[in-house]
Amino acid sequence: MQAWKEYQSKNKDRFLNELLELLRIPSISARSEHKADMKKCAEAVKERLLQAGADKAEIFETSGYPVVYGEKMVDPTKPTVLVYGHYDVQPPDPLELWHSGPFEPVIKDDKIYARGACDDKGQFYMHIKAFETMVQTNSLSTNLKFIIEGEEEVGSPNLATFIKEKKDMLKADVILISDTAMLSLQTPSIDVGVRGLTYIEVEVTGPNRDLHSGVYGGAVANPITILAKMIASLHDENNHITIPGFYDDVLESNDTERAEMAKAPYDEDEYKQDLGVKELWGEKGYTTNERTGIRPTLEVNGIWGGYTGEGAKTVLPSKAFAKISCRLVPNQTSAKMTEVLIKHIESIAPGGVSVKASEHHGGDPYLTPVDSIEYQAAAKAIETTFGKSPIPVRGGGSIPITSLFQSMLGLKTVFLGFGLDSDNLHSPNEKFDLANFYKGIETIPYFHKYFAEMKGD
Amino acid sequence: MQAWKEYQSKNKDRFLNELLELLRIPSISARSEHKADMKKCAEAVKERLLQAGADKAEIFETSGYPVVYGEKMVDPTKPTVLVYGHYDVQPPDPLELWHSGPFEPVIKDDKIYARGACDDKGQFYMHIKAFETMVQTNSLSTNLKFIIEGEEEVGSPNLATFIKEKKDMLKADVILISDTAMLSLQTPSIDVGVRGLTYIEVEVTGPNRDLHSGVYGGAVANPITILAKMIASLHDENNHITIPGFYDDVLESNDTERAEMAKAPYDEDEYKQDLGVKELWGEKGYTTNERTGIRPTLEVNGIWGGYTGEGAKTVLPSKAFAKISCRLVPNQTSAKMTEVLIKHIESIAPGGVSVKASEHHGGDPYLTPVDSIEYQAAAKAIETTFGKSPIPVRGGGSIPITSLFQSMLGLKTVFLGFGLDSDNLHSPNEKFDLANFYKGIETIPYFHKYFAEMKGD
Repeated sequence: MQAWKEYQSKNKDRFLNELLELLRIPSISARSEHKADMKKCAEAVKERLLQAGADKAEIFETSGYPVVYGEKMVDPTKPTVLVYGHYDVQPPDPLELWHSGPFEPVIKDDKIYARGACDDKGQFYMHIKAFETMVQTNSLSTNLKFIIEGEEEVGSPNLATFIKEKKDMLKADVILISDTAMLSLQTPSIDVGVRGLTYIEVEVTGPNRDLHSGVYGGAVANPITILAKMIASLHDENNHITIPGFYDDVLESNDTERAEMAKAPYDEDEYKQDLGVKELWGEKGYTTNERTGIRPTLEVNGIWGGYTGEGAKTVLPSKAFAKISCRLVPNQTSAKMTEVLIKHIESIAPGGVSVKASEHHGGDPYLTPVDSIEYQAAAKAIETTFGKSPIPVRGGGSIPITSLFQSMLGLKTVFLGFGLDSDNLHSPNEKFDLANFYKGIETIPYFHKYFAEMKGD
Repeated sequence: MQAWKEYQSKNKDRFLNELLELLRIPSISARSEHKADMKKCAEAVKERLLQAGADKAEIFETSGYPVVYGEKMVDPTKPTVLVYGHYDVQPPDPLELWHSGPFEPVIKDDKIYARGACDDKGQFYMHIKAFETMVQTNSLSTNLKFIIEGEEEVGSPNLATFIKEKKDMLKADVILISDTAMLSLQTPSIDVGVRGLTYIEVEVTGPNRDLHSGVYGGAVANPITILAKMIASLHDENNHITIPGFYDDVLESNDTERAEMAKAPYDEDEYKQDLGVKELWGEKGYTTNERTGIRPTLEVNGIWGGYTGEGAKTVLPSKAFAKISCRLVPNQTSAKMTEVLIKHIESIAPGGVSVKASEHHGGDPYLTPVDSIEYQAAAKAIETTFGKSPIPVRGGGSIPITSLFQSMLGLKTVFLGFGLDSDNLHSPNEKFDLANFYKGIETIPYFHKYFAEMKGD
């Protein structure tokens, strides 16, 4: 639509500056010292929704961080799209690896560098600006609802309760989320599946106090060594996960599906070069795309124990810790796999130490049917603005709330992601390409248009 | 000697209060922020030497922390005893496990609780007070020299240079050190051997940046997992160390020696109960005392990598680190074993990661001949004040500088240790029993007396 194009190019710079303001707020949900920043960010998002044209916007307190809700109901007979996003971000550490402050956004080589630039402030903000575009050009073809939450990066512990309490308010026809990546602007793609997640913390306790490694070394189980042996035992020589029952519920992809997936462009040398590794690593018998898409994985996200400071300390520590998470695929469930994981971890603890494993958070995997209206509408929108139809891919990340929406609201989710795998999500120097940001704002209105049309048919 | 006893009981409380003052100085050599405290502590030690009766005392700067030297030459024809000690202490963390401030010494149940109470402020201070006793009672039977250094806990990196430069100043007949433990006041013992040490830091690097564990998990080597596998591979199922050549130079003890050692009282249930463990752990085929005395060991002293903060972060980290040290026994050498260890660690690194291993510090193992004059003098001194002759034992700790004294000054060392294994060296709530402190002050003058007599014969 010409009107959209004009409005957007006229307001291009303002759209960007508004996003940069949002990125300056260190809304780190995992760090309690950022409570005030979280509140400030929620307030800002509410204001932006009203400015963009929402009839009403409200901040709903939860027992954690608040959810920002906004809506514009144009016509009850029109379909309603519920846009989900999150205003919280991952902790920025290690800080020393950032080229510029994680919360002092800079534009370099047409990219926005900041924590949250892509995950997810930059992406949900595209929806607010697309919404504004449609409002200002009187071309809203759907009713719109927004929920922008503040606890996605810590597992949305309070979202289920919120949805339960606001079931009526959240009534809609589809969930629209931009919190994923596409292959590239040249090769657009749509995530049709996301992996589930189970995340635990393990505490291994040996002696009841830190010991002198000279006086006791060699006679007492060292919890670090034991934890290392436990972690080492979780993958076999083919990098299959050794946990009994781990693969039981995995929905194996058939050869046709794998062939379809194999069409996604992939250059192993480029991939290795980008990561700076000489060799790749992974489950034998699967390609890189399969390892990150259709296979469950187990990664150690953090480990610590003993003396980690400057210099040397000859200590045999009392405790060692690890954070371990698994990515899950259909039809695994987070609840069951967490139980399987914890049970196994505790079962392999040798005598001489005690092991405590506790759950952090999780989410179930999710698949979007490619023959669904929401997928078709999204595909057509991308075709319109990219000039080619998107490749359906299985993303590696997890968006646990999709299964929540399905079970509690009976709604399907479509992932209209405009990020790139190279955006350094959860890493230093997270970025979002300006081209992707603007392409998203340009594409989203078409989704609403086509979704309304297809629903209408 | 009656005069000694009287003088000591008259000044008992002052001796203790002087030590407490010394313990209030946080002289942590491993932490650069304590530079000023180190200087302050050196100054204090120098003052105490002069007050005790040294003809001269001096602070010698090194390229690290200074060495405090003091001496009293009574008669060039008399033998000279060089007392070694160290005024630096181990870092106190984890702080939360201390019942009272590590540098706010308290007396509880007739024990002094503070970092350095036993290792080594409490023990070298016994020598200063024993020295004072002999001076004040005009009963010095030897010339005395003191070197109290400030870098023992970080491997005495500058001591060799100091000794080389001060060779003449340090001329003596024997080195006397109290930096070890005895079995108990009821079962006195003398360490006739200490283990050597090699200490390295390992850095494993996978991808060139922290990655999103969802986007990349399962396709890239996780440095934590790799480090865990490397550490796990260092001990086999019998807890033998698997490093090729690790045991090549080990001087195996014969059955007579092992039988002699087995005489040391040992109660496994008590041992386990004290440590709060259900099972012990160690090299198959050896007793606990052998594992900590005559066998080389490998312990992980610290490990860290990825996200170790509050909450959950789904990161696949770029780097993982570990501090690993080995205790060495005759005839292993620190230089060779460090090389063997580093070479092995680097050799087992799989493709997909790069590994850097660097040396922290080390020291060679040492043995005191039980038929030497210094041992005989020490044994007789203990017999005099304890009423029973000591058991010769092999200590598990390392006092690397002994081999320095041997090679650079041609001097044998005798370990007259009055600590206990239960003193929590290098751990929270380090303590030193008042009874041991006073027993040490009482015993040391007899060593000088008997050593002079035996030398005279």
